[in-house]
Amino acid sequence: MSKFLIDKYASLEAYTPGEQPRDMQYVKLNTNESPYPASPGVVAGISAEEVARLNLYPDPECKLLKEKLAAHYGVGYENIFVSNGSDEILSFAFMAFCSEQTGAVFPNISYGFYKVYGDLYGVDYTQAKLREDFTIDVNDYIGVNKTVVIANPNAPTGLSLSVEDIGRICASNPDNVVLIDEAYIDFGGKSCVGLVGKYDNLLVVRTYSKSRSMAGARLGFAIASKEIIGDLNRIKYSTNPYNINRLTLIAGAAAIDDNDYYADCCKKVAATREYAKSRLTDLGFTYLDSVANFIFARSDKIDGGEYYRKLKQNGVLVRHFSDPLISDFVRITVGTREQMDILFEKTEKILSEV
Amino acid sequence: MSKFLIDKYASLEAYTPGEQPRDMQYVKLNTNESPYPASPGVVAGISAEEVARLNLYPDPECKLLKEKLAAHYGVGYENIFVSNGSDEILSFAFMAFCSEQTGAVFPNISYGFYKVYGDLYGVDYTQAKLREDFTIDVNDYIGVNKTVVIANPNAPTGLSLSVEDIGRICASNPDNVVLIDEAYIDFGGKSCVGLVGKYDNLLVVRTYSKSRSMAGARLGFAIASKEIIGDLNRIKYSTNPYNINRLTLIAGAAAIDDNDYYADCCKKVAATREYAKSRLTDLGFTYLDSVANFIFARSDKIDGGEYYRKLKQNGVLVRHFSDPLISDFVRITVGTREQMDILFEKTEKILSEV
Repeated sequence: MSKFLIDKYASLEAYTPGEQPRDMQYVKLNTNESPYPASPGVVAGISAEEVARLNLYPDPECKLLKEKLAAHYGVGYENIFVSNGSDEILSFAFMAFCSEQTGAVFPNISYGFYKVYGDLYGVDYTQAKLREDFTIDVNDYIGVNKTVVIANPNAPTGLSLSVEDIGRICASNPDNVVLIDEAYIDFGGKSCVGLVGKYDNLLVVRTYSKSRSMAGARLGFAIASKEIIGDLNRIKYSTNPYNINRLTLIAGAAAIDDNDYYADCCKKVAATREYAKSRLTDLGFTYLDSVANFIFARSDKIDGGEYYRKLKQNGVLVRHFSDPLISDFVRITVGTREQMDILFEKTEKILSEV
Repeated sequence: MSKFLIDKYASLEAYTPGEQPRDMQYVKLNTNESPYPASPGVVAGISAEEVARLNLYPDPECKLLKEKLAAHYGVGYENIFVSNGSDEILSFAFMAFCSEQTGAVFPNISYGFYKVYGDLYGVDYTQAKLREDFTIDVNDYIGVNKTVVIANPNAPTGLSLSVEDIGRICASNPDNVVLIDEAYIDFGGKSCVGLVGKYDNLLVVRTYSKSRSMAGARLGFAIASKEIIGDLNRIKYSTNPYNINRLTLIAGAAAIDDNDYYADCCKKVAATREYAKSRLTDLGFTYLDSVANFIFARSDKIDGGEYYRKLKQNGVLVRHFSDPLISDFVRITVGTREQMDILFEKTEKILSEV
């Protein structure tokens, strides 16, 4: 920290992304990436000609991409916002819609970044406790008169809320934004995008990083009332108007045209997830019944941190969180069948040694 | 604006980027892009294999790119910060180092975004008047006890400060950050990067958008003391840790290896700029003696706004600012010799009609 940093950020605890080690090749099941490559249309779209044209600024309005997304999701052009990864949308939303006065509420176990944004922007937030079974108690979000932030499915649990429950939360908080982070929705949850026309306070946040195999391109989008989208644009045009680069804009539009490819990838991931659950059961693990592309699992035979470390020694990366509420668990990204079989082979070895 | 937007942003005036019209093909001299394409190494680096790998997150530490930049500029790895365009660095710096208490000072005629950041983050800023000849009066920045922000060369004037003057400003404000925005330095100014080891309050901001033909890739970097870089990282890891996508990281590193190509492009731009100045003189224009890749010019025969509009009707885009202090002028990006000849041909036609 320099002596120049203004006081309010002195105690800020930043987010820690999942490790990206470069010391060796791992079976990488720690950051919920898709195990499948970008689609043929994306690869073809980023041609040598387009790369040569990088001397020109991208379209700050992102018109083509937003038109494709609006048509695909059946909403208006003015209901779409796009950004440099969905984290940027979350950051903008906490900035625009939360404050010490407005406040915010989100689950005590969820995407760790919500707390970081709350601290960064000086938000008066509360963290509602999950139930014993790690499900969200919807009543904690009914009529709270605060900005509501919920990941659906939640992370790292993989458990989801129904569209009806999200509708109830929106209806009971008409003066506050309800942000539903659907990063993992395409692997088995039910999207609430259909509610956007009904509730002007609903802000649905999506990402290309998981179901569209594009974590490396940095592309997120939001669907909401045109007024909420207008506010996000106001923040964008006051911070970084050219927030999405030319090649990512091309990739994002091409991926919509290749929707069948990505839908097939999601089906494969969901099938592998169910296979992995059965293998975990065989190995004596318990886990939450995830509808996402990861499984939150624990074993009575080995501590979560120890299991994580031994897997890493064996060339397999999963994610472990030190929060005592969930430190028994590891979060395992669903990879290919082959990757999961390596995980289980190494797990058998590790369990045989404890 | 939605009813949910928190009060402090209700009156925010966002930045207006230069227009990117899609209705026809223009000779585009309005956003200070390089007229030359990305280098061969950049084009080769973004291969189909790399695009297919977009399913994986980028390295949030941006290690390879920072190593290349550190070696190229002769500074330490920990003296480098990289970001999604230099606007993002400016945004982070205003956030981290300016406040209502700290304050900031920048020229009244400069990059229009400084004022937007000041408003966004509630900074108590003052705008120091340029002299009559549009030069910066260094005395306005000596011992001000505020965060200093200066574009060098300044925009849209193209006029530059000496390294000695910047050193004096740094030395006289030891408790405040001095941010020098060197977006346009490679076309003829003298960089103050060599002062970073001497002044722990100096923050030099650079971009790939101009001299490295990569406005479309969104890549900026900063060089400063490791403490200041640490603060910028703290903001990055609290907002958007994966702020640079995989392909831009590849392009940024490849461009350093292709330094000769870009140095040659800069030389060509500088030569075309001097040619353009002589043509402007012939046409009866006056202009500031720019060392950047643009020329700020005016004519007694035609109002700046009218000249801009007539050029646009004739298929040539330049930038006009409505601020009455500079509304006589247009800012003309230096393109290729061929593009400039079209500009002058159209200008002759326009002047013959007024």
